[in-house]
Amino acid sequence: MKKTKKKIKAAILIIGNEVLSGRTQDLNVSFISIWLNSNCGISVEEVRIIPDIERKIIFNVLDLSKKFNYVFTTGGIGPTHDDITSLSISKAFKVKYDFNKEAYSILEKYYGNKNFNEGRKKMAKMPSGSLLIHNPSSAAPGFKIKNVLSLPGVPSILKSMMSNVKKYLIKGSVVISEAINLMTVESHISKELEIIQNKFLKKVDIGSYPFFRLGKVGVSLVLRSTKKTNINSCKKNIYKLIKNKKIKLFKNS
Amino acid sequence: MKKTKKKIKAAILIIGNEVLSGRTQDLNVSFISIWLNSNCGISVEEVRIIPDIERKIIFNVLDLSKKFNYVFTTGGIGPTHDDITSLSISKAFKVKYDFNKEAYSILEKYYGNKNFNEGRKKMAKMPSGSLLIHNPSSAAPGFKIKNVLSLPGVPSILKSMMSNVKKYLIKGSVVISEAINLMTVESHISKELEIIQNKFLKKVDIGSYPFFRLGKVGVSLVLRSTKKTNINSCKKNIYKLIKNKKIKLFKNS
Repeated sequence: MKKTKKKIKAAILIIGNEVLSGRTQDLNVSFISIWLNSNCGISVEEVRIIPDIERKIIFNVLDLSKKFNYVFTTGGIGPTHDDITSLSISKAFKVKYDFNKEAYSILEKYYGNKNFNEGRKKMAKMPSGSLLIHNPSSAAPGFKIKNVLSLPGVPSILKSMMSNVKKYLIKGSVVISEAINLMTVESHISKELEIIQNKFLKKVDIGSYPFFRLGKVGVSLVLRSTKKTNINSCKKNIYKLIKNKKIKLFKNS
Repeated sequence: MKKTKKKIKAAILIIGNEVLSGRTQDLNVSFISIWLNSNCGISVEEVRIIPDIERKIIFNVLDLSKKFNYVFTTGGIGPTHDDITSLSISKAFKVKYDFNKEAYSILEKYYGNKNFNEGRKKMAKMPSGSLLIHNPSSAAPGFKIKNVLSLPGVPSILKSMMSNVKKYLIKGSVVISEAINLMTVESHISKELEIIQNKFLKKVDIGSYPFFRLGKVGVSLVLRSTKKTNINSCKKNIYKLIKNKKIKLFKNS
């Protein structure tokens, strides 16, 4: 895995009517985002969820692949009629949609020659020139073409494949984060917090998130930076603020 | 609520670094999508998750508001420095970002004159000309300007406000759906399923989703249509298929 000090930015494109309709709760965004940051120093900067419609897949793959270093797609690479991700990406990049020899041989071995039917063969078809992302759970591989990496939508299978994308990625700087949970409300500290954020502009990103836990309200301040020293200096300022305002830390923090 | 037979399409724009970083699991997409379809016959056709960056909010609000009948934004309307949704939408539509008199008076009453500080006052600032979306949980209202409706990111507060958006929306046709859960794998039925989908093209949308439950694998077929009669005819074809293939229904279905 090559390294760079530059910020490496990724987008996630979730392809699937089932997520859009609300029937299926997406669980992949959170997993992919945390995994990419902590393992590869890659930051997810945009997510889109779109339906299984060819022209929408083509438009969004091309749009995101221009704007970001990497695009991770999830869903639509199975054997059924509504699995049109591979064909659509082939059309997006104007390459053939064809059998990948290695994928064909993996799937033929997995199912056995007798049971290797049309639907199963379809999972070996992908954009010509793709590199495989191996699948230790259910054999059918994902693929990488240009800066687009296509993974399945089933969370357990996707998780098992993530370590196999690493070799295709350039490593950036890992963003470290630290949360300080306070027993207060946002509007009690917003003015002072803005002063601290301005002091650490471009060094630390301070997020403020209200929460309700155990029947109490609180605020979670999340400090994010690629440098631990910056987080520590910023933290000092926040501890000073909460001392001045006599705010208690939330017990579970 | 006015009615139309046309398809009414919406997009959701989730504004928040915490969702992109994976720290917070989004729960609003699924709730909004199901709520809009079942209460208003409005179909969510795209979701985007973007960071708290002004130029990105402006770009996406304008882009989505052109492409869809409605855009629902979540997040970034609180009192802290990272809450920049209202200001950004004002800039997107080139209107003043100013105190809304009604919102100001609601919040002043809620906090009491003495405790109505700068951060709390900020929550009364919004794009000039906005209509309010009342908030029965924590007073601070959302707003509607043009075809954009802005809601908070905290799921419990957002949920309490949804019934107050109804008056601003035109009602379309509700999509009804029915799931048939089978004890099989997708690649065993993909060929026959495609034939059925082609027979019901533009009448019923058949989604096929593999699942793992109670240690068993299965496939959930989801039929979606605005007409119950179409779903029933399509269902007959599927029952014929599973009879021919000797596939059992999944016990919990």
